[in-house]
Amino acid sequence: MTAETTGGDLSRLRHLNALTAIRVLRADEAGFTLTELARRTGLSRASTEDVVRDLTERGWVAEAEKTAGGVGRPARRYRFRADAGHLLGVDIGRHRVLALLTDLDGKVLHSHRVEAAPGLGRIERLAATDDAVRGVLRAGALSGDRLWASGVATTGLVDGTGKVMLSEALHEWTGVDLAAHLGRLVTGPVLVENDSKLAALAESWQGVARHSRDVVFILSGVATGAGLIIDGKLHRGFGNAAGEIGALPAVGWTRAPEHLRDWPGEGDIFAAARDGDRRAVAAIKRYVKDLAVGVSALVLTLDPELVVVGGGFAGSADLLIGPLRAELDRWCIRTPEIRVSTLADRGVALGAVKLAADHVGTVLASGSGLTSIDQFARA
Amino acid sequence: MTAETTGGDLSRLRHLNALTAIRVLRADEAGFTLTELARRTGLSRASTEDVVRDLTERGWVAEAEKTAGGVGRPARRYRFRADAGHLLGVDIGRHRVLALLTDLDGKVLHSHRVEAAPGLGRIERLAATDDAVRGVLRAGALSGDRLWASGVATTGLVDGTGKVMLSEALHEWTGVDLAAHLGRLVTGPVLVENDSKLAALAESWQGVARHSRDVVFILSGVATGAGLIIDGKLHRGFGNAAGEIGALPAVGWTRAPEHLRDWPGEGDIFAAARDGDRRAVAAIKRYVKDLAVGVSALVLTLDPELVVVGGGFAGSADLLIGPLRAELDRWCIRTPEIRVSTLADRGVALGAVKLAADHVGTVLASGSGLTSIDQFARA
Repeated sequence: MTAETTGGDLSRLRHLNALTAIRVLRADEAGFTLTELARRTGLSRASTEDVVRDLTERGWVAEAEKTAGGVGRPARRYRFRADAGHLLGVDIGRHRVLALLTDLDGKVLHSHRVEAAPGLGRIERLAATDDAVRGVLRAGALSGDRLWASGVATTGLVDGTGKVMLSEALHEWTGVDLAAHLGRLVTGPVLVENDSKLAALAESWQGVARHSRDVVFILSGVATGAGLIIDGKLHRGFGNAAGEIGALPAVGWTRAPEHLRDWPGEGDIFAAARDGDRRAVAAIKRYVKDLAVGVSALVLTLDPELVVVGGGFAGSADLLIGPLRAELDRWCIRTPEIRVSTLADRGVALGAVKLAADHVGTVLASGSGLTSIDQFARA
Repeated sequence: MTAETTGGDLSRLRHLNALTAIRVLRADEAGFTLTELARRTGLSRASTEDVVRDLTERGWVAEAEKTAGGVGRPARRYRFRADAGHLLGVDIGRHRVLALLTDLDGKVLHSHRVEAAPGLGRIERLAATDDAVRGVLRAGALSGDRLWASGVATTGLVDGTGKVMLSEALHEWTGVDLAAHLGRLVTGPVLVENDSKLAALAESWQGVARHSRDVVFILSGVATGAGLIIDGKLHRGFGNAAGEIGALPAVGWTRAPEHLRDWPGEGDIFAAARDGDRRAVAAIKRYVKDLAVGVSALVLTLDPELVVVGGGFAGSADLLIGPLRAELDRWCIRTPEIRVSTLADRGVALGAVKLAADHVGTVLASGSGLTSIDQFARA
């Protein structure tokens, strides 16, 4: 018992040293010599050599390109590998589940999509989720235990433990514990967040909002959602319920999609409008009028630099953005710039990847909550 | 010409040294010895002695209380004096102008109030403002050139230069340049900001919101305004127009006060309601119903920890808060705690003081934009 405890403590010390080294190594892609690394980590030369050997064997550290110049043989430099681990981002939508597999920088390596009918119950939708996750891991020839962290996006409100507190859009979805469910397929932490919030995060990370500090993101579609970036950060709210303006009947978001549903025509209403169908054009106009009241409430509250429209209807921006701008001009004191997402239907899943990447970054930077670097990956 | 320039440069160097010393001295009320101050400022011992002598003569620095302990005579310690300068906060309201005179920590030393009828034109309201400022300076036996900075609160939208961009509540008020006008009475910078924003700032500084990071503040009264504290900071918005949800007809704030005006009774409607007047009670109920839609829009957008109700109607909180909470329960996913301001009718003016204090703090901390410490006060 004592021997085991001692063994555990020694192992823990090695892990802490490794974390310290990773923290330093991640700061500069050009890498560090052993001498530099020892100085910056405060570790002894011997410990530094041990750590670098250990991390190299795990595939987390590689030799960096040698830089020219100087006299004599240059010292070897070591760098952290973004391809040392993988992240998973999953978007559980009404019509399909999309899973992305990325490297630690969030570069998408593989994606896998599984169709899911809007009326699916909890068990069937979770099964579709499993299929999407297994599919993308298969595409990457990875087992779930090589993931450092996973992000999951869902409609509805999510609590701090990864459980859906409330979902009106999906059948039998309130109460589902997504963190626990996904945890059966993958190792490492599973972070769960609302889809509109994650789509906003993705726009701020890789999308049209990446140069803006204050952004209102609208997830347009059969249901409408909102995500807020304030002062460069995702605004979650005290109870993780920010952006839920649509719950207020006065702002028109519950009624807005009814105009599209009530359209008496056949097929795609947006295509019909482009073909000159007057009733389609009129229905879309009524939809935008209702949508704009809620968007105006957000804009008047926050006075953002930018409004980004993403989600399922972003592909019909040619029909929506002009009328939306005209409606905002009616209600807003200052109509912000309006831009259309360029992340197509990947925005939400990319936001889930970013959630996972941020978690890994925070843990590596602080070491807090990390009992072992093996928590990220089984060597 | 050359000699003068050289003189100016020398003087500028002394000012920079003084700023550096102030920066260090403000960090600890216990004060510093000359040796400590020299080490922390990086100034030579001789320059440190010069600076401390200079600042002491100006009244900005005093000897600190001697601490016991140690062997031999303790070295003298020096501290920054919060009473070295003064701040002015002015609230230009519909019914009166209130001016506060404080020390550099924002401790109120004197206040002066001048009544102003709601219908006053620009010239008369500015004259009332001048009277309030002169009155409070007289009470403090100060001339305007001893103020380090002044904050001014007004209804309406304010631009970055201290001009009112748009005011619907006050007659002839759009376009008035308050920074320039106040600048004729006082030296030092004049910062101008919207009254609801400043009242929110005051709650976050000295009021019931001082332990909360995310706060929706409601300035209740004949007109309704909102100020937002997000992540501990006043949220201004990209065009300084955040919190203007009331401009949206759908949220009911334009209609809300009409219920109180349409009450057919005599005298104070709140007093009448307390006396059991049913029509007064019903009118207040209709007022709260409309008020609550806008408050719900803010709450659903931001999901704050706390809603604070201040302004003119805060004194009738006994009649308003219960019904407001019941209405929020109807519309909000999570009704936050609701608290009533305890700053009485000083909240807005205190926010103006805080605006001035923050400006002084920023300038002293960075030295940026400061050409001379005499910018704050003529010695």
